[in-house]
Amino acid sequence: MNMYKVAIIGFFSLILTAASLSAQQNTLRVTENSIVRLSCIEVDPAQLTEYCRFAEECGRTSMAKEPGVLFMFSMADKRQPNKITILEIYADRAAYESHIKSPHFQKYKQGTIKMVQKLELLDQTPLIPDMRMK
Amino acid sequence: MNMYKVAIIGFFSLILTAASLSAQQNTLRVTENSIVRLSCIEVDPAQLTEYCRFAEECGRTSMAKEPGVLFMFSMADKRQPNKITILEIYADRAAYESHIKSPHFQKYKQGTIKMVQKLELLDQTPLIPDMRMK
Repeated sequence: MNMYKVAIIGFFSLILTAASLSAQQNTLRVTENSIVRLSCIEVDPAQLTEYCRFAEECGRTSMAKEPGVLFMFSMADKRQPNKITILEIYADRAAYESHIKSPHFQKYKQGTIKMVQKLELLDQTPLIPDMRMK
Repeated sequence: MNMYKVAIIGFFSLILTAASLSAQQNTLRVTENSIVRLSCIEVDPAQLTEYCRFAEECGRTSMAKEPGVLFMFSMADKRQPNKITILEIYADRAAYESHIKSPHFQKYKQGTIKMVQKLELLDQTPLIPDMRMK
């Protein structure tokens, strides 16, 4: 490879590295203004598969489209799979308000309203706000 | 800047970019072998501050020292702050076994055993295993 090629590749690598660092620095983080919530949901067992389809679609879309939705990790209890828990982290109240107005959340909410037998929203204080998933 | 300097900087940028991509690819991820668990803990309110100190130290050390501890997110209920929930994600059973034998976990376990009034370990199935925190 001659020096010119190395220089050209090097130039683009520099840009890539800078862009990557910049993206990392611009990422929103959990702060004292964040909303950290456990949503505890009991679903009609007969409608669990359909419920999970709605929840997965809403979770994926929220994470992909909403910068203020920092985490939306949904899980089913192994012993009682109709007990769903979602750990939701919003950058701040504005991010949360924007989320509940979004078309994908409204689709989830309206689509699952008759499947949900119990819903508890438990707001949390993180013990280590800077904790990051690997 | 002359061509040689660009070439040299470019060369090191290439190495950095490759190392960064490689680090991302080598990061352990949640798979079907992972253990995803909600630990629900009720702490003696009189000892809550001290409990949280133990929990924070154990959480930080586990994440820093154990590649197989993918996430350890501890939180206190806003309305009943002595109700602690920890979302724990281990890469696999070996990572979990190694964790509970670690000196930092044993320090936490022995240090808090008289503070804990109730403990439930609820194993979970993630609905979206590839979900990542931002």
